[in-house]
Amino acid sequence: MPGISIKGIHMPESPIRKLVPYAETAKKRGTKVYHLNIGQPDIKTPEIALEAVKNSAIEVLEYSRSEGSEIYREKIAAYYKKCDINVTAEEIIVTTGGSEALLFALGTIADPGDEIIIPEPFYANYNGFATSANIKVVPVFSKFEDNFALPPVEEFEKLITPKTKAILICNPGNPTGYLYSKEEIQKLAALVKKHDLFLIADEVYREFTYDGVQHYSILQEEGIDEYAIVIDSVSKRYSMCGARIGCLVSKNKAVITTALKFAQARLSPPTLAQIACEAALETPQSYFEDVITEYVERRNTLVAALEKIEGVQVAKPKGAFYCIVKLPIKNADNFAQWLLESFNYKGETIMVAPAAGFYSSPNIGLDEVRIAYVLKKEDLLNAATILEQALKAYPNE
Amino acid sequence: MPGISIKGIHMPESPIRKLVPYAETAKKRGTKVYHLNIGQPDIKTPEIALEAVKNSAIEVLEYSRSEGSEIYREKIAAYYKKCDINVTAEEIIVTTGGSEALLFALGTIADPGDEIIIPEPFYANYNGFATSANIKVVPVFSKFEDNFALPPVEEFEKLITPKTKAILICNPGNPTGYLYSKEEIQKLAALVKKHDLFLIADEVYREFTYDGVQHYSILQEEGIDEYAIVIDSVSKRYSMCGARIGCLVSKNKAVITTALKFAQARLSPPTLAQIACEAALETPQSYFEDVITEYVERRNTLVAALEKIEGVQVAKPKGAFYCIVKLPIKNADNFAQWLLESFNYKGETIMVAPAAGFYSSPNIGLDEVRIAYVLKKEDLLNAATILEQALKAYPNE
Repeated sequence: MPGISIKGIHMPESPIRKLVPYAETAKKRGTKVYHLNIGQPDIKTPEIALEAVKNSAIEVLEYSRSEGSEIYREKIAAYYKKCDINVTAEEIIVTTGGSEALLFALGTIADPGDEIIIPEPFYANYNGFATSANIKVVPVFSKFEDNFALPPVEEFEKLITPKTKAILICNPGNPTGYLYSKEEIQKLAALVKKHDLFLIADEVYREFTYDGVQHYSILQEEGIDEYAIVIDSVSKRYSMCGARIGCLVSKNKAVITTALKFAQARLSPPTLAQIACEAALETPQSYFEDVITEYVERRNTLVAALEKIEGVQVAKPKGAFYCIVKLPIKNADNFAQWLLESFNYKGETIMVAPAAGFYSSPNIGLDEVRIAYVLKKEDLLNAATILEQALKAYPNE
Repeated sequence: MPGISIKGIHMPESPIRKLVPYAETAKKRGTKVYHLNIGQPDIKTPEIALEAVKNSAIEVLEYSRSEGSEIYREKIAAYYKKCDINVTAEEIIVTTGGSEALLFALGTIADPGDEIIIPEPFYANYNGFATSANIKVVPVFSKFEDNFALPPVEEFEKLITPKTKAILICNPGNPTGYLYSKEEIQKLAALVKKHDLFLIADEVYREFTYDGVQHYSILQEEGIDEYAIVIDSVSKRYSMCGARIGCLVSKNKAVITTALKFAQARLSPPTLAQIACEAALETPQSYFEDVITEYVERRNTLVAALEKIEGVQVAKPKGAFYCIVKLPIKNADNFAQWLLESFNYKGETIMVAPAAGFYSSPNIGLDEVRIAYVLKKEDLLNAATILEQALKAYPNE
């Protein structure tokens, strides 16, 4: 029998994957499971987007252009303008989700054995994309106590080698909910200029910032046009995770020209979803205001409820819809499994994502979980009560 | 300014990409251009597929399962059963087009520096996927004179090294139109078993076989369950190129388990398109009969018209909707550009794909072009007339 590739063997599994069978068993037992473990919002997709697909007069579902349709890219550029980001349609490549945008970015800038530095904890699939591109992820530690603010520049510099090609950030952060300030982005800008590195920012949660704080994009920062690559996606913005439409944005012409070659090899992003996305850009501002209001309330509700539980600490999120929660337990993997396998409170339990899977360094974050506040406030309150009861009942051995 | 990756620099461009600006200029001059250069059929997508999307009651466009929805995979398995291919839903991973299926297959079986053997001429994007996965394509030459039949097994064996991981075929072939016989598949089966290699077959044109000859899938061949990986796609089958839905099929559990990790990293294939594809599987058999009848007529019309032109030879296609045509010219790249830049017959010209881009070896197929018979018969006849007139007028220097 022929052998699987080494990278195939080393491809990381999703940190929650092994919990899925336990969740299914819990449901079969009749236990209700609150899913705090995934970033699939319950928010309705804008009707205008779904209607556009229904009203489309397509007779042949053809390929679109590899870089995305002309008109859709023009409209994306107009959207960015509203965000105070000045880019043209030629600086945008439409991709199959933010995932593909990151794959194209990594392929464009790094060869096997090259390194990218990422503040940890970070979105676990970055590991998967890096493994599949044979690139080494070098984590720089960010602290729970600082709400996962940018680590000091010196910590990055200690890790830079001749193999280092880029620094990758997620802003606002999944799983941390941290929103980098303008000053932090400027520190990163100076750093990548000094060491001639790319700065890749995953900004898919751009709209999800709270407490009146504005998102500051790396594309707003002057002087790093040749360095900045933005990864974007409609998934969370319009609650269209299943559309699988994102984009790669850069003012660096060589980056766009090269990424386009990767885009051409796979022919085209999905055509039906592009119709939906083009229409989604017409979503009225009130939709976002309602959504943000809802998330702020969810965050406030959840954080307040969690902080009331003895021994529980929350790294307060400023954006996205995740937070890292420190629990009075030894091992969150075991705890998360126990919640599904052996516990219920009034016939209900919760599914959380153990945070260790978001750290690249071993044996860090073992007492932390990521909670996604993608459920209704009542459900979040129920979930907090279940967590409180569970911590009382958990043997913690 | 930071540097682009070596593989990014070496990513091949589409063989027709450099012709596109000339085609656009020709159109601006008012010249009508017949597109014989691409595999975008003009056939209508089955209404049942487009209607399913329009009738969908989706309110939140959610992720689907990473491996594709349960019900869609069950229906694909039922489709394969009708093709006399015995696979279960668990042996199928739904992908974003056949392109992603091939990327997953390559990632699953090969590491940087590994080699795959492909009969040339081959689908040019195989080069792109191999480059992006840092895998070396080793071409084995197949002959125009044999209509691109399978090269002798000894020719493959000469090329096998400890780095060889797989043999990749496209059946029926793009760009050759060749359909491998059962006997040829059996030779390949014996070869991969002898040398412990994977056999990857791109079977996206499975339905497009002519003259009453049946397609023989590598999954029908007994004794190679652990070796066989099929790449499939709905793009051509239902004229749904823009859906971007394909699948990877294998009875090798390690392959599926590993490919699933790549699938999980990118979260989900497109949800809207899966709705269309699920419905497309209900397309009545009469649709395919009509389509095949149409393609047979197109092929017969085109081949007969081409063979009447002095000095023109056609490698007679048995499947798919491409053929390689040998022209009495020195360099098809120059000729294809000249057709768009400097020629018209009664205000019309043709765009063809120079075949050299489908060969991995240098300086082969310089006098060959690939013609896709994806246009109506009248248009194909006009195109043949234009080619005849062009060959008379071409300086051929």
